[in-house]
Amino acid sequence: MRVEKKGKWFTLSFPRKIAVIGAGMTRFHHKVHADKQSRELFTEASIEAAGSVDNGFDLRDADALYLGYFSSDNFEKQAHTSALMADWIGVNPIPTARVEAACASSGVAMNMGIIAIASGLYDTVIVGGVEKMKTLGTGDVTDTLAMAADASYEVAMGFTFPGLYAVMTAAHFHKYGSKWEQLADIAIKNHENGKLNPKAQYQETIMEIAQKLGQRKGLTFSDEMEFLRSDLNAMVAEPLRLFDCCPISDGAATVILASEDAARRYTDTPVWVAGMGQASDTMALHDREDITSIKASKLASRQAYDMAGINAGDVSFACVHDCFTGAEMMATEDLGFFKPGEGGKAASEGRTALDGEKPINTDGGLKAKGHPVGATGAAMVVEVFKQLRGEAGKHQLSDPEYGLAHNVGAAGATVTVQLYRR
Amino acid sequence: MRVEKKGKWFTLSFPRKIAVIGAGMTRFHHKVHADKQSRELFTEASIEAAGSVDNGFDLRDADALYLGYFSSDNFEKQAHTSALMADWIGVNPIPTARVEAACASSGVAMNMGIIAIASGLYDTVIVGGVEKMKTLGTGDVTDTLAMAADASYEVAMGFTFPGLYAVMTAAHFHKYGSKWEQLADIAIKNHENGKLNPKAQYQETIMEIAQKLGQRKGLTFSDEMEFLRSDLNAMVAEPLRLFDCCPISDGAATVILASEDAARRYTDTPVWVAGMGQASDTMALHDREDITSIKASKLASRQAYDMAGINAGDVSFACVHDCFTGAEMMATEDLGFFKPGEGGKAASEGRTALDGEKPINTDGGLKAKGHPVGATGAAMVVEVFKQLRGEAGKHQLSDPEYGLAHNVGAAGATVTVQLYRR
Repeated sequence: MRVEKKGKWFTLSFPRKIAVIGAGMTRFHHKVHADKQSRELFTEASIEAAGSVDNGFDLRDADALYLGYFSSDNFEKQAHTSALMADWIGVNPIPTARVEAACASSGVAMNMGIIAIASGLYDTVIVGGVEKMKTLGTGDVTDTLAMAADASYEVAMGFTFPGLYAVMTAAHFHKYGSKWEQLADIAIKNHENGKLNPKAQYQETIMEIAQKLGQRKGLTFSDEMEFLRSDLNAMVAEPLRLFDCCPISDGAATVILASEDAARRYTDTPVWVAGMGQASDTMALHDREDITSIKASKLASRQAYDMAGINAGDVSFACVHDCFTGAEMMATEDLGFFKPGEGGKAASEGRTALDGEKPINTDGGLKAKGHPVGATGAAMVVEVFKQLRGEAGKHQLSDPEYGLAHNVGAAGATVTVQLYRR
Repeated sequence: MRVEKKGKWFTLSFPRKIAVIGAGMTRFHHKVHADKQSRELFTEASIEAAGSVDNGFDLRDADALYLGYFSSDNFEKQAHTSALMADWIGVNPIPTARVEAACASSGVAMNMGIIAIASGLYDTVIVGGVEKMKTLGTGDVTDTLAMAADASYEVAMGFTFPGLYAVMTAAHFHKYGSKWEQLADIAIKNHENGKLNPKAQYQETIMEIAQKLGQRKGLTFSDEMEFLRSDLNAMVAEPLRLFDCCPISDGAATVILASEDAARRYTDTPVWVAGMGQASDTMALHDREDITSIKASKLASRQAYDMAGINAGDVSFACVHDCFTGAEMMATEDLGFFKPGEGGKAASEGRTALDGEKPINTDGGLKAKGHPVGATGAAMVVEVFKQLRGEAGKHQLSDPEYGLAHNVGAAGATVTVQLYRR
């Protein structure tokens, strides 16, 4: 089924149609899940996913469970988490696997679930993701996340992810003349979307946060930009300030995949997998030709577009991996929505807002929705599923046809893209 | 393709034939790799695997890389290891995933590789496994491994894996009258096999080790059993003594899978995947009906036998998961080679020796070959591949037809089985 490779890349085609028939998630948050373990979060998300299947779905009917969890080892001193989750949602003895690919863990688990159904060996697969991060303090979380970079050549030199993305963003500024104010507009937009999403960690606009924080300090701000330029928005790694960074979150998300035949039994409103792609790149930034874009995002999306027989212009909306605002800017270029160097400008012009031509991170994105890393790829599919079924509530788009999920591991050494359609 | 489920289990059939076309591994050892990282070990194994393909194989021709690594987080402060390994063996930008399922990590990665080729989406897949364990002291390694049990209900109560397997083994003794001397015979047999395997960690018989250790202490032993009953074979968790436990090891193994068409291009001597199975069970022992057997081993092997259209009697030899001697005893029963309660007796009667009716762990098993946990499932396939191609050297069996690989995660919450044939 591989048409070509080497030089270009290869085009895949599915031997049978595959659908998302259900999807659910916990709220993502940094506080409300304090007394819950990952097993409880995943169970909550899975029950919601099963409940979202039109004709009902008994989780025990699934043929396999693939779980994305980045570092259960560090966060919960618990490994073997796919078997644990299968136990907790009561689906033993089905096969399970934990998939780890940094912040793309459940994006990769999604692709594996899709492949498993494509094989004809499985008819329904539960794909989930979870991360319980708030067991550690911020410094230890940052160190844990840094394990997704090259321990010998990057972390040993002092790099953590804010630093790596700061370098990439600064290079983008230098090459294209993009500006920090454009990044700020991305954060403002994602908070506006998060405000409309009851599952989001931050359901406040940045202006609302500015007023609240300002009050405590006896300060007033005339607009978001004044607040974002102030010391309350601390510099993390130049040019990235606090509000350019996604938060630390606990949460889980679950998606139920089915073959066409199975999907027709379970639901009248399946969401079809139109295409998928995945690519890898060097671990270390210093080995890449260009750090102003993520090559694996370009390759993975091209593969997904080719498979679906569409191009970037046909995408109605996208959940892209905005671990940092600079990452969203680059993603909207790498995915082909805007020309290289024009992603930031497009955001400032409102072209990626809910009412723009290409809505990006309609659920608030990692920035406002939160980023429990192992859950993020699956949570994007929850949003796409809801949007394409017209169930996204206050942030519902008008009649979207194609939704894209873009999940990045680390600084782009792993990227997955899936395209879904009504 | 699923014939039945619930009550029994389900039978799968491959939509196309799948072969192993190459396999390679580093030596497994606790000392010789002291100056190497996992990336170097995996590269070494992968180069050997590529070199074993009859007509040559450029690793860059692979369509994907699936890697088993249990706890890179703890052992090397490095996550995202599948992307790292892809980088090191030069196969970017192909898709990669790290799979973690405790000590069955690369067994599950093998099944995922098989599924991926079955899907028709990929034609050749590199499946590997690696673990660099000797970065930590023995106590910290034991604690790291214990993360594969239930952190809340088992580890918090003081359990580590020697304890869990001791409980299971003691229950087996109680139920069936099996004896520790039978376990000792398993260890003796596996060391005899390991002596013939240049990749094994221990290439000495237990008698040779007894003489060497005895010399240091001014002791002489008339036979293995006298040594094994002595204080030099310390009690770890009754009834398991030191020589009932596999060692801590560094090492890597790589397997190259291909569709039939691709296999025919690359090799004249493919080893076919005849069947595969995988099952899960409760994490905690206390939730199981019976702890004298591993239910997931029974289910996974039944699935593999059904798929291959054979039964246990047709299996020429098997690599089973002997993390402890008691585990090998139970495995030979669960896989259907011997009746429940007769696994230990069969070993003592020499029926599982190289020249027995059902040779088990012809490469020395985890006990003598070593157990770098993430690499173990893939290393079993290396042995099966060599045996079925007549390339196993001093431990070569006479004309084997079917080889079985049985990989267990933790105390059986994950089990994979694959059947291979010439």
